[in-house]
Amino acid sequence: MEQSAAVERDQRESARRGEARLRAGDAVLPALGITVEDVAPGTATARLTVTPAMLNGHDTTHGGYVFLLADTAFAFACNTRSVAVAASCDVDFLEPTTAGDELVAVASERVLRGRSGVYDVTVSRDGRTVAEFRGRSRSIAPQPTDSSTGTSTGEEPS
Amino acid sequence: MEQSAAVERDQRESARRGEARLRAGDAVLPALGITVEDVAPGTATARLTVTPAMLNGHDTTHGGYVFLLADTAFAFACNTRSVAVAASCDVDFLEPTTAGDELVAVASERVLRGRSGVYDVTVSRDGRTVAEFRGRSRSIAPQPTDSSTGTSTGEEPS
Amino acid sequence: MEQSAAVERDQRESARRGEARLRAGDAVLPALGITVEDVAPGTATARLTVTPAMLNGHDTTHGGYVFLLADTAFAFACNTRSVAVAASCDVDFLEPTTAGDELVAVASERVLRGRSGVYDVTVSRDGRTVAEFRGRSRSIAPQPTDSSTGTSTGEEPS
Amino acid sequence: MEQSAAVERDQRESARRGEARLRAGDAVLPALGITVEDVAPGTATARLTVTPAMLNGHDTTHGGYVFLLADTAFAFACNTRSVAVAASCDVDFLEPTTAGDELVAVASERVLRGRSGVYDVTVSRDGRTVAEFRGRSRSIAPQPTDSSTGTSTGEEPS
Repeated sequence: MEQSAAVERDQRESARRGEARLRAGDAVLPALGITVEDVAPGTATARLTVTPAMLNGHDTTHGGYVFLLADTAFAFACNTRSVAVAASCDVDFLEPTTAGDELVAVASERVLRGRSGVYDVTVSRDGRTVAEFRGRSRSIAPQPTDSSTGTSTGEEPS
Repeated sequence: MEQSAAVERDQRESARRGEARLRAGDAVLPALGITVEDVAPGTATARLTVTPAMLNGHDTTHGGYVFLLADTAFAFACNTRSVAVAASCDVDFLEPTTAGDELVAVASERVLRGRSGVYDVTVSRDGRTVAEFRGRSRSIAPQPTDSSTGTSTGEEPS
Repeated sequence: MEQSAAVERDQRESARRGEARLRAGDAVLPALGITVEDVAPGTATARLTVTPAMLNGHDTTHGGYVFLLADTAFAFACNTRSVAVAASCDVDFLEPTTAGDELVAVASERVLRGRSGVYDVTVSRDGRTVAEFRGRSRSIAPQPTDSSTGTSTGEEPS
Repeated sequence: MEQSAAVERDQRESARRGEARLRAGDAVLPALGITVEDVAPGTATARLTVTPAMLNGHDTTHGGYVFLLADTAFAFACNTRSVAVAASCDVDFLEPTTAGDELVAVASERVLRGRSGVYDVTVSRDGRTVAEFRGRSRSIAPQPTDSSTGTSTGEEPS
């Protein structure tokens, strides 16, 4: 099907532009050593190795870093579709992790309806789930054809 | 009322011990420059000045740091009552912030019922709300009488 | 202040029109015996006496009815501002109730920012909280000047 | 594998007992015409045909009934494992429905860790998603071996 192939190509191209837009100038990824990979329409994977500076007083990872990793995967996943922002997020903490652990956050699109999207992110360590995250996105603009414009996630404009 | 005064004194003492327990050995507060103050039964305030390393590609604060600050205030507030962990949290992002902004997260206990608690945290900049957070806590042990034991937030044991 | 008085009068008038709009033709309120009162800018109260038909197999109120009551108070509160829909909601169930109990849901606006709003609803019985609800609204149109038009809550348009 | 077959048989037996326990004496299912089917370890499906008495003033289904249906599927799914209660739930409303529509809620277990579980429920009409629900369960007792005891969902004991 010619049409289907064209749609798929457009989606991959939109994902590529969204990924380039989010990576450009982002200071958090290099500062924390987060890597983002497997960015494709509606999905993305982010990885982080927990450092001692991310620990609470009792040697467990601060929940804020677990959330940040999941939110990063979510941002890349929803920005494959359009210029999108995070409106709200939920997170369930299932078990603690600690320094040296590699956390992997895999985001997948659950539903996309008009300008609203719902994305699920599972955070795991050694293949075992340590947190479940759900993010709600809001599209604020079509994907720009040039990576020099656009707005990253983490805000909800009026 | 003698009894009421005694209860109030016990609650303040529990809050003091919880605060000391969370502060001891915490690596995140000094690493990010977060200050925690006004810790009292059921409440706490956390402050953070956003740095360039906390910005997305388009000069807005990564939502993960906004969450982390709110989660910190929540952790201190719920650990004034007992040794408590975060079970789940929700966050609404209302407007973006950027480097140099001072974010203030004020946590207050909405309801405490048995081992479960619900806490609201408002994050503001210059007195204007930028995010609303709700955290659910689960008590896992009574407040230890000595600050050398206990478990920090960020995990949910089985 | 003349201006302030005028703003306040406009807000009360918007609230009155929103309330009239939601009441018109609503089938759920009379069917379940829900009463709505104290509708004012950003707030509303809904009451329900639990009937045997609302009970689970073990004589406790189905959580769906607790949610429905909170959602009703939320809908009236957010529609005092504009024609608004519920985008998403969270609920915490704190203790069970049963037939004959009168549940009271009080909704209050936490923050209104552009087209987005966050509302808190506390559901209580005899003054004791049994559930906490948080709803996110999205404005889809200004308040119509005539009550014959508009859209009720419970949907999220694209 | 003898052992695996025994485990699977035990899980099916637990699911059967949980289902019987929830059905016994439930007044909501017959009152609203909800049918529950396909109850198996960690999953359940609930169906409801919307009636005029479930409509808001503008001919759309009250969000409370959409939640109630999802909550029902969630309750049956999590009670296949043990005697479990709903601690908290989130719902996203994606599009409106109306009288005559058949809504189908399919619950599936996302993660079960100790006494805590996370379940996702998708509500659809004609195969198209109209709402996404996430429920958090808390186990309060092992599955009783006799269906005459146990506690239904919709409460969170201390």
